[in-house]
Amino acid sequence: MPRPSQKQKIMSAALSCFAEKGYDGASNKDIAMASGTSEAALYRHFESKEDLAKSLHMHYLNMLVSKIEETAVSRRPTLEKLRDIVTLMLDSYREETSAFRFVLLNVHEHMWKLPRKTRYPVDTIETLIVEGQRSGVVRGGDSRILASVFLGCILRPILASLAPPGFAPVLVKNRRHDKTIAEAAIAAVSAATK
Amino acid sequence: MPRPSQKQKIMSAALSCFAEKGYDGASNKDIAMASGTSEAALYRHFESKEDLAKSLHMHYLNMLVSKIEETAVSRRPTLEKLRDIVTLMLDSYREETSAFRFVLLNVHEHMWKLPRKTRYPVDTIETLIVEGQRSGVVRGGDSRILASVFLGCILRPILASLAPPGFAPVLVKNRRHDKTIAEAAIAAVSAATK
Repeated sequence: MPRPSQKQKIMSAALSCFAEKGYDGASNKDIAMASGTSEAALYRHFESKEDLAKSLHMHYLNMLVSKIEETAVSRRPTLEKLRDIVTLMLDSYREETSAFRFVLLNVHEHMWKLPRKTRYPVDTIETLIVEGQRSGVVRGGDSRILASVFLGCILRPILASLAPPGFAPVLVKNRRHDKTIAEAAIAAVSAATK
Repeated sequence: MPRPSQKQKIMSAALSCFAEKGYDGASNKDIAMASGTSEAALYRHFESKEDLAKSLHMHYLNMLVSKIEETAVSRRPTLEKLRDIVTLMLDSYREETSAFRFVLLNVHEHMWKLPRKTRYPVDTIETLIVEGQRSGVVRGGDSRILASVFLGCILRPILASLAPPGFAPVLVKNRRHDKTIAEAAIAAVSAATK
């Protein structure tokens, strides 16, 4: 594996600092310290903490969207692709919990400042909803609404499991609840007739 | 109708200021000005902006939870009660959009600092999931996970409709999509056999 670049080191340190202290709580100094570089190095790569946070957000969002799109374009049945997207998102959450947490919990602060052309998971899911409505396997209704519902089925349990222990079963530790979430999400968008 | 108290005036002004400028952007001075009172009056009722925000959060959360609990304890069939909760939440969102926005978008910043005994919508929904599992109308699986999924079916489309125009159909303007959301949410938690 190639050694991480200075920029990668800073991004990875920022993610840890944001996870630990929150976006507001983590200073550029904290991030520089954690990355083993300097504030000067940080400013060589990023204009500001906001710029760094936005880069992080875009980076992880793009990674997730690419995986979702890869699944979406395969020639498999629509509902199977949707089911794969549930698994893929839950696995991404487990593999990159800090990143997922950052994107999910900061989404409202930052998302509307992301470039207009940014692709979101809901966009790709919506294309599958439309595809499934054409072939009759997905229920009728506004495709954007149904795509949001589908996403909500996955993200809300993740959000709950990001809360302190005791609040909800912690999805990050095992796949025990994945089947429940996948079946519920598929049922939410499936056409009633089988 | 009785005249709003000074405290109510301040809370209502704070909600508008937070909606307009965000929690970080709105100062105590802004809130005092908008309420037609003074900063001194604000500090008579609240220790700090955070204390005021927390009071607002608790106030609207309690209002919503009370409505949900009222529905939950009726003697109607479980799935009908769950369907009523969807309608109730979408109506609350339309009636009190700023409050809903505040509670929904600030939930991650503040919720874990709310008192430990705070009741959340997910708690009441979970009791209905358990009730439905006992009678066989709700699918098997962890009740907390299924309650989160159900909530996600409602909240994610609301979240999407809080985004700027063009991002998603704006639920606040009409009830056209309510049926789609209700049916999808019910299907998500229903037992497969009818």
